[in-house]
Amino acid sequence: MLFGKIVGTVVATKKDPKLEGLKLQLVAGIDSQGNPAKGYVVAADSVGAGQGEIVLYATGSSARQTDITNGKPVDAVIMAIVDQWDIDDQTVFKKH
Amino acid sequence: MLFGKIVGTVVATKKDPKLEGLKLQLVAGIDSQGNPAKGYVVAADSVGAGQGEIVLYATGSSARQTDITNGKPVDAVIMAIVDQWDIDDQTVFKKH
Amino acid sequence: MLFGKIVGTVVATKKDPKLEGLKLQLVAGIDSQGNPAKGYVVAADSVGAGQGEIVLYATGSSARQTDITNGKPVDAVIMAIVDQWDIDDQTVFKKH
Amino acid sequence: MLFGKIVGTVVATKKDPKLEGLKLQLVAGIDSQGNPAKGYVVAADSVGAGQGEIVLYATGSSARQTDITNGKPVDAVIMAIVDQWDIDDQTVFKKH
Amino acid sequence: MLFGKIVGTVVATKKDPKLEGLKLQLVAGIDSQGNPAKGYVVAADSVGAGQGEIVLYATGSSARQTDITNGKPVDAVIMAIVDQWDIDDQTVFKKH
Repeated sequence: MLFGKIVGTVVATKKDPKLEGLKLQLVAGIDSQGNPAKGYVVAADSVGAGQGEIVLYATGSSARQTDITNGKPVDAVIMAIVDQWDIDDQTVFKKH
Repeated sequence: MLFGKIVGTVVATKKDPKLEGLKLQLVAGIDSQGNPAKGYVVAADSVGAGQGEIVLYATGSSARQTDITNGKPVDAVIMAIVDQWDIDDQTVFKKH
Repeated sequence: MLFGKIVGTVVATKKDPKLEGLKLQLVAGIDSQGNPAKGYVVAADSVGAGQGEIVLYATGSSARQTDITNGKPVDAVIMAIVDQWDIDDQTVFKKH
Repeated sequence: MLFGKIVGTVVATKKDPKLEGLKLQLVAGIDSQGNPAKGYVVAADSVGAGQGEIVLYATGSSARQTDITNGKPVDAVIMAIVDQWDIDDQTVFKKH
Repeated sequence: MLFGKIVGTVVATKKDPKLEGLKLQLVAGIDSQGNPAKGYVVAADSVGAGQGEIVLYATGSSARQTDITNGKPVDAVIMAIVDQWDIDDQTVFKKH
């Protein structure tokens, strides 16, 4: 899993029927220091993350292991909202 | 999933029998700001996207979770046509 | 899927028994303009592609969805020989 | 599999229910010479690795082949703690 | 699949129980010209490759399609020892 920041939402009316009802979030990459990183991903949201939140997302077939993504053509899912992480016992990120 | 732009169609007469009838689109990479990005992918089209449209595509085993790609040797599928996305409440892309 | 060019064949006598009889092609990367790109892949050939031909290959679990690769430890398969592709209605590649 | 170093732990209270009880470790990349490499991954821990330890992690669907990750939306798992490795018969890393 | 060179062996005593008995080889990347390439992978060995040998390895779920890796948390497997390959009818590598 990788860290990401929710920066927006993607609207798509015409889509595969299995995607109906799924919220698609635009997730910007975050490095292990909590800084912006290259890249982005559009991910299904299984945890109700809000804009600006730092999340963990999983990709590939693992993205289909949640109740809302099971059997659907999505290759990325937000599966956790991050509260905090440390590196070498120093807090790098702590949710306000 | 990632954003892409449909730039063309790929013609292949000699192919694995399971690919018969699948439309293979050439998709150019698009970054989160809607600008051209490095890279491309040839993807099966499950939504009838037209040239110039901005789409979402999924890769890997997730690309086989649509009715038209199920069990077939394709590793990328277009699963949505994008209408709009925002970053930090600013509209980045809006379909004409 | 990505474009590639068949540049050679790989000979391997000592191999996993499931690979017996599979032809392993050396595929050089091709970008969307038809030019050589970085990287290569060794792929099983499900379509009888010949040296110099431009092909499409699929990777990952999708590479095991052909009759010849089903259940085998291969992560790339040539699943089509490309006849032509266009970008913005200009022909980029056309097979001779 | 790749080498990594456990540098911290990730706390996430709000998460997919299947993740309850899983320990999520922050793993920094390590190259084949044992030096820090670019990149990181957040991985489930199937072996009880401690901070500072050098581990092996697997990604993708292979990350779900342990008893603790089976069927869960995780795409990386720590599956071994490394004791030693050599390159050309020179010891590159040996656990203290 | 990609070419690699066996450069060493990885020792890990504490590991997921499913890994017991698997030999984990350290594989250095090789490009299509037979030269060292960036990157490495630690792979399970299904063919008894020895140090210095040039091999093919497969990654992802395909790495679990051998008898020794079936159902195990490994994402890379050595599935062939390379005897020879050619590019444009010139021999690039030939095993001694």
